[in-house]
Amino acid sequence: MKVENCKAEMCRAIEVVSGHGHDLSPPEKSPLTGEDLEREGEDLFVPPLNFAMVDNGIFRSGFPDSANFSFLQTLGLRSIIYLCPEPYPEANAEFLKSNGIRLFEFGIEGHKEPFVNIPEDTIREALKIVLDVRNHPLLIHCKRGKHRTGCLVGCLRKLQRWCLSSVFDEYQRFAAAKARVSDQRFMELFDVSSMKAFANVTFSIHTSCFGINRKR
Amino acid sequence: MKVENCKAEMCRAIEVVSGHGHDLSPPEKSPLTGEDLEREGEDLFVPPLNFAMVDNGIFRSGFPDSANFSFLQTLGLRSIIYLCPEPYPEANAEFLKSNGIRLFEFGIEGHKEPFVNIPEDTIREALKIVLDVRNHPLLIHCKRGKHRTGCLVGCLRKLQRWCLSSVFDEYQRFAAAKARVSDQRFMELFDVSSMKAFANVTFSIHTSCFGINRKR
Repeated sequence: MKVENCKAEMCRAIEVVSGHGHDLSPPEKSPLTGEDLEREGEDLFVPPLNFAMVDNGIFRSGFPDSANFSFLQTLGLRSIIYLCPEPYPEANAEFLKSNGIRLFEFGIEGHKEPFVNIPEDTIREALKIVLDVRNHPLLIHCKRGKHRTGCLVGCLRKLQRWCLSSVFDEYQRFAAAKARVSDQRFMELFDVSSMKAFANVTFSIHTSCFGINRKR
Repeated sequence: MKVENCKAEMCRAIEVVSGHGHDLSPPEKSPLTGEDLEREGEDLFVPPLNFAMVDNGIFRSGFPDSANFSFLQTLGLRSIIYLCPEPYPEANAEFLKSNGIRLFEFGIEGHKEPFVNIPEDTIREALKIVLDVRNHPLLIHCKRGKHRTGCLVGCLRKLQRWCLSSVFDEYQRFAAAKARVSDQRFMELFDVSSMKAFANVTFSIHTSCFGINRKR
């Protein structure tokens, strides 16, 4: 198992299998096709709590458990961004290993108000991983897919030039009764000007399905 | 303006511009690129109410207004499915015309409980349009993006073999306090067995970004 130290130890990127690295070819473990699924019979899929598609090649959710693995296989994931400090469970690490999925860990504490303190630099580093299409398809998750995941996605939306009310509307859709003013203040204050170099990547996400702005 | 009558008059497909029809090439009006957006300056985008990505090439929202048009352009839409019986506003029709977007109208009444009566055949016909990748990128919308849109997306999830609790979880995320038991009963009772022929198309949606099961 190869462990990389990212900037300021904010991220540990664990290559659970050595191999495909950062090419743009499809993941070694291809997504299941309709035929595969037919062969698998009529079992139902169980997406993780709060699962949703953020943009082409980018998904979000709460903490996946073994019941979600067969669904996650249909996404053909190349990477997972994990936003909690707790060690990744063995069963999940095994799933990543057997599917050639790289894990990027950003240990953000799940503070509750009034002690919330989302580290901006960590979100910034995670955002760079999200914006790198070589990591796609990618799943972002924390524990419930509400606060830490919501803040990271909200900062991505700001980079995509969404107005703040739309960023908050999306955040609140997932956080529901647990929405935090402090998280929304964090997203409002997050400065995207320093990440303009990634703007084209960001906007290429919208159109990557249609062969524009994406080198494959 | 060409008007097509779909099965049992449930749908009026209006080709607001004659032309690209059903080829698999990119829409005549290409999505904006990062460079285009840079040239447009720093204006913020305003996604429609309740906007979200359903799957590759499929989006959902409430009723878009002119404030949302520049955002919708970034999606490079080829089609819109409109689920209300009210006539499509002139400004919206003009936007579709100038962007080469085909409008599929399915006039479902926005009944309130206890008089809800979502027509299963209409949802079935709309689902066939959703599943046809030749119509992608596609936006599904009604008035608020909660009930009619939620039921259509819920039936798509059943075809994608999502377990019912995940289908309801997604429905409730958009309907929030307006969630209707009758809508959830409709989704639970919706029979997907007659649409198995579309199963491979459905599952190909998941992987269409990665060149699997999609002929482009």
